[in-house]
Amino acid sequence: MTAVESLVRMNAAAVEDKLRHLLPAAEGPEARVLEAMAYATLAGGKRLRPFLVTASSEMFGVARECALRVAAAVEMVHTYSLVHDDLPCMDDDALRRGKPTTHTAFDEATAVLAGDALLTLAFEVLAEAETHSDPEVRCELVRTLAAAGGCHGMVGGQMIDLEAENQNLDVGAITRLQQLKTGGLIAFSCEAGAILGKAPRQLRHALHAYAHDLGLAFQIADDLLDHEGSTEKLGKSVGKDGGRGKATMVALLGTERARTQAEMLARQAAAHLEPFADKAAALRAVTDFVVTRDR
Amino acid sequence: MTAVESLVRMNAAAVEDKLRHLLPAAEGPEARVLEAMAYATLAGGKRLRPFLVTASSEMFGVARECALRVAAAVEMVHTYSLVHDDLPCMDDDALRRGKPTTHTAFDEATAVLAGDALLTLAFEVLAEAETHSDPEVRCELVRTLAAAGGCHGMVGGQMIDLEAENQNLDVGAITRLQQLKTGGLIAFSCEAGAILGKAPRQLRHALHAYAHDLGLAFQIADDLLDHEGSTEKLGKSVGKDGGRGKATMVALLGTERARTQAEMLARQAAAHLEPFADKAAALRAVTDFVVTRDR
Repeated sequence: MTAVESLVRMNAAAVEDKLRHLLPAAEGPEARVLEAMAYATLAGGKRLRPFLVTASSEMFGVARECALRVAAAVEMVHTYSLVHDDLPCMDDDALRRGKPTTHTAFDEATAVLAGDALLTLAFEVLAEAETHSDPEVRCELVRTLAAAGGCHGMVGGQMIDLEAENQNLDVGAITRLQQLKTGGLIAFSCEAGAILGKAPRQLRHALHAYAHDLGLAFQIADDLLDHEGSTEKLGKSVGKDGGRGKATMVALLGTERARTQAEMLARQAAAHLEPFADKAAALRAVTDFVVTRDR
Repeated sequence: MTAVESLVRMNAAAVEDKLRHLLPAAEGPEARVLEAMAYATLAGGKRLRPFLVTASSEMFGVARECALRVAAAVEMVHTYSLVHDDLPCMDDDALRRGKPTTHTAFDEATAVLAGDALLTLAFEVLAEAETHSDPEVRCELVRTLAAAGGCHGMVGGQMIDLEAENQNLDVGAITRLQQLKTGGLIAFSCEAGAILGKAPRQLRHALHAYAHDLGLAFQIADDLLDHEGSTEKLGKSVGKDGGRGKATMVALLGTERARTQAEMLARQAAAHLEPFADKAAALRAVTDFVVTRDR
């Protein structure tokens, strides 16, 4: 395991502890939805977005406790989007991270409700005093996460993605789709440290620019894995997006040019970290990790 | 039309203006989800929850602009819950307020996404500076609405309701179900004025107690309408809840005793308004309206 891999794993363990603490205990007559929330959230995964939250927070000297709460909130939003996207009426996936998807393990109604409750809980966590002593900061976190996750962000991206099946999108349209669908939440994760640390505007902008390129590189790397990987390695049905005629950079450019493009974006992302000098070591390392990981 | 009916209608018109202003224009590649959001939200309805927000806000001299934004946010959350509850995997309803439900007019995937986006937008609106000059107040609005809407509130209530089909719940269990499913959002609506107006704790508690009884009275009145009404009057499939073996007070107590119970709860609700004297005239009037309305 490389140094960055063990850093990512250690951070994932800390975020999972925080998630376990923030998720309500599965008791009472509503226990079923609480079980489904925990099932979906604690199913493993790289926890890339939480890593970006804690790494950006460390650059501004933010208390780790605050950063972990925001990291957990982002992961709740990411998880809710996976649970809803996997539904039969959306991407209809039976496997996720090698386990049955939430609607397969429970049922569709419970999966819809668990997603709804995770999204709601994320905002509750951000608004609580424990997340930051300054309520203006907490409001900015809520506002920015909502903008990144909503109809002009992640939800809008999923809408475009569903409509794009069997359509011929060009590079520009795919870039826009991916900026919304996965880029928004990655951008929020990187900016979260700047918001928590009340960083000057230009440093927040630098992180936004970094996240923009990182998000696109990440998506291409994911599509390459989907294209080339095996079910065993990825833990989800492979080749599915391509098979259903979903628009991806890999389908459009071919694997060679897509890989070159991802590496170019990763270098471009890293260049935006210059103002942070040595403090950005973790973000630089994770940028390489994103394009070279094999699962 | 009675005085309170015209008051409710005038307020509904103002809330709809605000909703039209806050909902994003249906343009761009994600237009379909934006159309579905507007379709679901601007489909009419009594707008009872928004009325409770503005009426409680007036008692504390809150600026009408602030109250209307919170009223619109509550209606977005209420609407999202209807859109998701109507889905085939949940209550499977084809009609709502006399119109095709969102998944019928669009499709299931779009309905799931429109609901998700409405919930997200509600929190974004609450967190924006225009909602209140004090960020502590905005955080308290986000926190309280999330608690009322989440897994220990509305979503938890819907989970219990789904599991209660064909089960024999007793009066205590039904009361708990309804407190979560509809009571939470009604309580938030009544408390919103106290939060916006930074009212003393005991006045906020009085409004919470009022809302508790009002919510239960409202639910029984709704069940009575469902039991006795016609499809024409109610604009949704009638007798459905009873027919599917859903637990209601009417099924348990019979119409006579259920009606007596609703009236008793309404009187009990009004008694909690005593500390507000004449200022609570609108809330008193709407309490009568809730149990006597015929649609």
